[in-house]
Amino acid sequence: MVISEKTACLIIIGDEILSGRVQDLNLNYLAKWLNQQGVDLKASHVIQDVEDVIISTLNSARKTYSYVFTTGGIGPTHDDITSKAVARAFGVKMELREEAVDLLKAQYPNHKISKPGIKMATFPVGAEMIANSVSAAPGFKMENVYVMAGIPKIMQAMLGVLEGQIEGSGIVLSKAVTAYISEGKMALPLENIQKEYPNTTIGSYPFFNNQDDFGTTLVVRSRDEISVTSAIQDIKSWLDKNEARYKEGERK
Amino acid sequence: MVISEKTACLIIIGDEILSGRVQDLNLNYLAKWLNQQGVDLKASHVIQDVEDVIISTLNSARKTYSYVFTTGGIGPTHDDITSKAVARAFGVKMELREEAVDLLKAQYPNHKISKPGIKMATFPVGAEMIANSVSAAPGFKMENVYVMAGIPKIMQAMLGVLEGQIEGSGIVLSKAVTAYISEGKMALPLENIQKEYPNTTIGSYPFFNNQDDFGTTLVVRSRDEISVTSAIQDIKSWLDKNEARYKEGERK
Repeated sequence: MVISEKTACLIIIGDEILSGRVQDLNLNYLAKWLNQQGVDLKASHVIQDVEDVIISTLNSARKTYSYVFTTGGIGPTHDDITSKAVARAFGVKMELREEAVDLLKAQYPNHKISKPGIKMATFPVGAEMIANSVSAAPGFKMENVYVMAGIPKIMQAMLGVLEGQIEGSGIVLSKAVTAYISEGKMALPLENIQKEYPNTTIGSYPFFNNQDDFGTTLVVRSRDEISVTSAIQDIKSWLDKNEARYKEGERK
Repeated sequence: MVISEKTACLIIIGDEILSGRVQDLNLNYLAKWLNQQGVDLKASHVIQDVEDVIISTLNSARKTYSYVFTTGGIGPTHDDITSKAVARAFGVKMELREEAVDLLKAQYPNHKISKPGIKMATFPVGAEMIANSVSAAPGFKMENVYVMAGIPKIMQAMLGVLEGQIEGSGIVLSKAVTAYISEGKMALPLENIQKEYPNTTIGSYPFFNNQDDFGTTLVVRSRDEISVTSAIQDIKSWLDKNEARYKEGERK
């Protein structure tokens, strides 16, 4: 059974990630969130705050994937160039949106909305705003592109707004076994089990703390529950037969 | 003064990052390490364990950047396909390397080197091995491409081996001021300071914990120390003049 897959790509726009100043947390959060929506995150690109790079990366991604998410670069300062780059990528102009000005005025009643504030209320023509319950300045959606803030707390609030609005193609189920043997020992039987269940993806993820604490987490993923259960059962049978120590689930 | 910039790209090969199972830590570590080598990390791509995707991403990156680093997919199991993909990207065959077999034998004296072990001792023709002090199985270098393990501890050990082997183009200096004012207030003067010091990159990174704890970290980066110091001084002068609270350096 082939289900038309819904796919996604995340474009992380941020010199601060590439300079090492900030550890990105948005990819991992979005990946888990997309799992729950039944959408497969297929790729992520971390790029500089450079307009031409944003435009070419975005234009390639929005043709390739069902959904594209971006994080970063929608604030008020000179290095926040995402919104303008998105407008150029779509070939549209920017326009001031009064409803966004009102949101900012409501959030900051004692401030005059200055030029930088105006910038955060200016969007590509045709943009649908994505509410920001943390600091008011909205993200936005253009066709299949979702433009979000880079601050994790705000990005997460924006994803909350999108809950239920993204069409998925069925939840991917995942089961894991953690085996306390070296990855190599398991390699051949695992390859055979993978061949037997071609509609699953079996991942083998070694961990190594020291000579006494190492092993491999085996993860089976599929939209078909029966295949996941059967493949996990085959893995456990092999481990039992070879007297390998293991436990159900991920290593904690 | 234009210095020919040494640039880098990181390709993170790993379904486990894209599924959200694992939080990537290698990008941040590599970014900081490259800073110390005087190399600018320009982009990073997180891609699936799919051979054609690895090949096209790698072949594009190795023509574009001075150095390309990859993490993940060099273990013994069926989902470890990086080495073979790199060989195909370079148009070379794979070959067994006896010195790698010896390394594995020395690390695991009680094991017969089986087919999966052989796989970890098999490299693209022409590869230079990168020692792995943690679990023996080496990474490797092909021209300007450095192929490393995905497990952070092993990846870090491999980078340690590369210390001093990567030619840089001068260390990028970085100074920061943390201002406890909203990003918008600082936007215009910051834009002017950026214009005055075109050989610096001034980043403005807002943080927002709650209505009483928010602000903006301002980071000036350049290979020219005098410009960094002057730009930071101008930022502080503006903050003083506007009676804004701030402190030197990053927010802790």
